[in-house]
Parts: sequence; structure tokens; C-alpha cells
Amino acid sequence: MKIKAIVTLKEGVLDPQGKAIQQTLNGMNFSEVNQIRQGKYFDIEVNIEDEKKAKAKVEEMCKKLLANLVIEDYKIL
Amino acid sequence: MKIKAIVTLKEGVLDPQGKAIQQTLNGMNFSEVNQIRQGKYFDIEVNIEDEKKAKAKVEEMCKKLLANLVIEDYKIL
Repeated sequence: MKIKAIVTLKEGVLDPQGKAIQQTLNGMNFSEVNQIRQGKYFDIEVNIEDEKKAKAKVEEMCKKLLANLVIEDYKIL
Repeated sequence: MKIKAIVTLKEGVLDPQGKAIQQTLNGMNFSEVNQIRQGKYFDIEVNIEDEKKAKAKVEEMCKKLLANLVIEDYKIL
């Protein structure tokens, strides 16, 4: 089954890429944008039929590879 | 309010980055991973209180800047 996961920078960690996107949008007449933070999205297809087990496996992958827990948080959708 | 958006490669578009992550995971004893596709995640804070209007604005940003519609799809969460 397919599991989706999101990895985002923790609150307080600077996100220069998001800042650059925000400034570009402001310059394109999207003046209503206050802040943008960019993260990573993963669509993971695993050979596990049980949803709970599949999510637990994806969580393990996030901890070991996909997220840097010092500066990033992950969320399984 | 905060609006979240996801930008992913369209089906059929090669994703070498996702493939590299998949191979790394397979090599780390996550043999149950069949496929990984990576996308981008955006957390956008806009100065608009109405949810419907805010989402419409974010959709416009996706079309104009955040997604390359030739090879990517976007989804407002």
C-alpha cells in the first residue's frame, strides 16, 4: 500500500529557500503572502497490506533516513 | 491563515531522486519498499481569513510559480 510522509524544518530553523519563494511571490503581486516554509513530501509504496504496520515501517524510515531529526520533523499522513 | 500545498511529479515522469532514496532504503534492509516518489511541500501563510479565498489564492500561486504544470501536479490540502 501507499503511505505518504512529510518532512518539514522545525519551528525556529531558518528556511532560506522558503524565504526566497516568499519574496518572489511578493514581487509577483501576491502581497498577501506572509511566510512560506518548504518541506519534502514522500509517496512510499511498501509491500505491506496492514496499514498500521506499513505506517510503523515508514516511521522507522523517516527516523533512519528521510528526516534529520536534529532540525526536521516528520509526519505520516 | 495557513494553507498547505503539495507539488508532485506527474505519473510517468522519471524521478531519479526518489529512485536513489528507494535503493538506499533497500540497502538498509527496508526490502519492502517498492517505489518512492519525492515531491515538494509548502506551508503558506497568507493574510486572508476566508478559507475558500485563501485556497484560491494558493492555487493561483501553484499555477504561476510553485508547480511546473508540464511535468508536475499540485494539490491544495
